[in-house]
Amino acid sequence: MSTEAQPGHVYLVGAGPGDPDLLTLRALTLLQTSDVILPDDLVSDEILALASPTANIIPVGKRCGQPRITQAGIHALMLEHASPKDGEPGSSVLRLKSGDPLVFGRAGEEIAFLREAHIPFEIVPGISAAFAVAANLQTPLTDRTAASKLILATAHHAAGKLELTPKWSGAFPEDATLVIYMPGRHFRALADDLIASGIDPATPCAAVSKATTPDEHVHATTLAALEDDAVGPSPVIVLIGHALQIG
Amino acid sequence: MSTEAQPGHVYLVGAGPGDPDLLTLRALTLLQTSDVILPDDLVSDEILALASPTANIIPVGKRCGQPRITQAGIHALMLEHASPKDGEPGSSVLRLKSGDPLVFGRAGEEIAFLREAHIPFEIVPGISAAFAVAANLQTPLTDRTAASKLILATAHHAAGKLELTPKWSGAFPEDATLVIYMPGRHFRALADDLIASGIDPATPCAAVSKATTPDEHVHATTLAALEDDAVGPSPVIVLIGHALQIG
Repeated sequence: MSTEAQPGHVYLVGAGPGDPDLLTLRALTLLQTSDVILPDDLVSDEILALASPTANIIPVGKRCGQPRITQAGIHALMLEHASPKDGEPGSSVLRLKSGDPLVFGRAGEEIAFLREAHIPFEIVPGISAAFAVAANLQTPLTDRTAASKLILATAHHAAGKLELTPKWSGAFPEDATLVIYMPGRHFRALADDLIASGIDPATPCAAVSKATTPDEHVHATTLAALEDDAVGPSPVIVLIGHALQIG
Repeated sequence: MSTEAQPGHVYLVGAGPGDPDLLTLRALTLLQTSDVILPDDLVSDEILALASPTANIIPVGKRCGQPRITQAGIHALMLEHASPKDGEPGSSVLRLKSGDPLVFGRAGEEIAFLREAHIPFEIVPGISAAFAVAANLQTPLTDRTAASKLILATAHHAAGKLELTPKWSGAFPEDATLVIYMPGRHFRALADDLIASGIDPATPCAAVSKATTPDEHVHATTLAALEDDAVGPSPVIVLIGHALQIG
């Protein structure tokens, strides 16, 4: 009777916005017990400091001027470490993403890969930036009278061109709060696009730079008065809507 | 020189979807240290079991056939317990809401009240149901090609009439994932409304009953095949979109 060595589990986990206090209990347990940790580069050092001292931490962030790790490279690392080796079971692998793992990352591709490779996996949600930013600003995101919807969106750029207007006109009803992740740096153009599509220029908005860190900077204003120069450095998140209680 | 007794802090905190493992570290600390806890009735017993044994737990859920506590009644409880009394500082009050405190609750009213009453307060985000449900279903909520937006919405009913169509036509672009909180029980009518407004009948959707509990029940299907009778008991959350990897 032979027992085949089993693959290790992969844990696809949200680390939240950066403050270790906003980790879930499950994420903390997995940080403390996983053999291998593959963090995105937005995952804070304070959070990685909670990992087991014996954990093998391999940063897989795709920017910061380091040699670029491709999505396929991340898949290969998950497979390598989760696979059984020399008759020993595979390692437990913590794939740690900032915010929630299932929005605006490439979780779909990682999930498809894990399924195809027959690697068992678990997904653990995390606090997405919109919720942490709103908590810091002490503003509701919906309101029984002003906003029955919360829209989380991301702005895509192609060859330097802002591709917002065609996708957004009609996609932002008056009774919604809109939160834009990775908005680029053309805030005034973004506001003009929204106003041109019929959104009230007096709609409150906030552009929050380095949210939830000690360097957080808030430009709380209206769509009409949003100014590029008043917004702090990246990363920035933009909140727009009449339900917001800001400024 | 007289020292005036100070009001206690109020903490407006998200408890997440029910599983204690999905509490944030901050929420756990506040559960263990707050003098008074005011939980909504969707906050699970497992979570309340983590409170300090000396905490005064006063459920303020607004249903379950108990005498109804009004929103004003909740405000009065926060004020009563946070206020200084007999020269002693006020108590720390944990206002514990299921999910995230800033979406689809009445946080706006509680925030406005606390500001007006000059009670210091802190807001702590929580995992909203959409993210926990998607994690359990092991499906992404956005996708680089299929969905650049995530829309969290709630369905309102007035006098038994489904008020979905007028608000939703146009509000659900093809490149979005839609999650409906508190959808009511007319799932087939909801799907028909969306199809009538131009959404592809083959769009994947899942109606998840008692999400993230041991009694969770998933009806994973398409808009065309969504059936009222196949959906489990309340509470239900509905996910719709081409980015979903379900079934």
